[in-house]
Amino acid sequence: MKFCSQCGHSVSQHIPQGDSRLRYVCDHCQVIHYQNPNIVAGCVATWGTQVLLCRRAIEPRKGYWTLPAGFMENGETVEQAAQRETREEACAEVVNLSIYTLIDVPHINQVHIFYRAQMLNPHYAAGEESLDVRLFDEADIPWSELAFRTVSRTLECFFADRPNQVYPVRSEAVAPLAGLAKPQQ
Amino acid sequence: MKFCSQCGHSVSQHIPQGDSRLRYVCDHCQVIHYQNPNIVAGCVATWGTQVLLCRRAIEPRKGYWTLPAGFMENGETVEQAAQRETREEACAEVVNLSIYTLIDVPHINQVHIFYRAQMLNPHYAAGEESLDVRLFDEADIPWSELAFRTVSRTLECFFADRPNQVYPVRSEAVAPLAGLAKPQQ
Repeated sequence: MKFCSQCGHSVSQHIPQGDSRLRYVCDHCQVIHYQNPNIVAGCVATWGTQVLLCRRAIEPRKGYWTLPAGFMENGETVEQAAQRETREEACAEVVNLSIYTLIDVPHINQVHIFYRAQMLNPHYAAGEESLDVRLFDEADIPWSELAFRTVSRTLECFFADRPNQVYPVRSEAVAPLAGLAKPQQ
Repeated sequence: MKFCSQCGHSVSQHIPQGDSRLRYVCDHCQVIHYQNPNIVAGCVATWGTQVLLCRRAIEPRKGYWTLPAGFMENGETVEQAAQRETREEACAEVVNLSIYTLIDVPHINQVHIFYRAQMLNPHYAAGEESLDVRLFDEADIPWSELAFRTVSRTLECFFADRPNQVYPVRSEAVAPLAGLAKPQQ
């Protein structure tokens, strides 16, 4: 951030009175520009015993498999965001959503929230941001080709919980990957 | 938003290619400025059977009682945000946090996430944004003077769940209040 989005003058970083963090503050109109984490919402969408995965057509992690998920938009609920992303990326309608994992990714200022959900019918297709969409049995999940650790972790939890049919809500965090110039997430 | 925070030129609203929503796009450098919901994180902090509430020293809802809560910052987890807000607003240290309610407030682009938590010791005091901080028995909760519906709802759930000592994670939404020029939240 270099310029004030309200008045167009330059901004500089300092700690406003009563605050404890560096903020971008307008040098002219003094507006403080807060920057906060974003929510990524998605689904573990199932049809029978199979789970729906999308192969990413865009960076980051183009070509890798992911659960349908994306940035929550203003004016919607987290659940609506998860449903919309599943519709956009996998052309699939999901119902009976239950919150399942909330995984912090603090080094990139994101919180990933996944819901368990049932597909309304067995129809799906690759949306604009997907190269391919498929239903996978547990034995066929492409673990080494998953796009993001929050996806791997959510699927691990899901298959660990499924034999008992009890799905406690998981709240945890992932740390930066060591040794990568650009962490995968 | 009137100006591009990257180059300082004017922005205008249109739907970028491949998108379906109006975005602020720079007329000069073409950067798209996405706007996304914010997370408010807080605690139902308990000492024995009592719950910690703060009387707000700032708008909105100055003078009303709230659970300690505030905007999540970049670089922290939701749980860390809830702990920090409890420290800042109530000068109280909390441990053993468990995610409890996730309440969407889509008309103001917020998601409120509350954790159940235990106070480490019985020390607390009014922080800068609080007029007063007190431990309340269930019978003394000032229901008609609570600041926000997400706070009322979280406390209702808490006292409904407590007799059974089972606290399922709640995921729900609140709608705008009818008949108010400025919704309370």
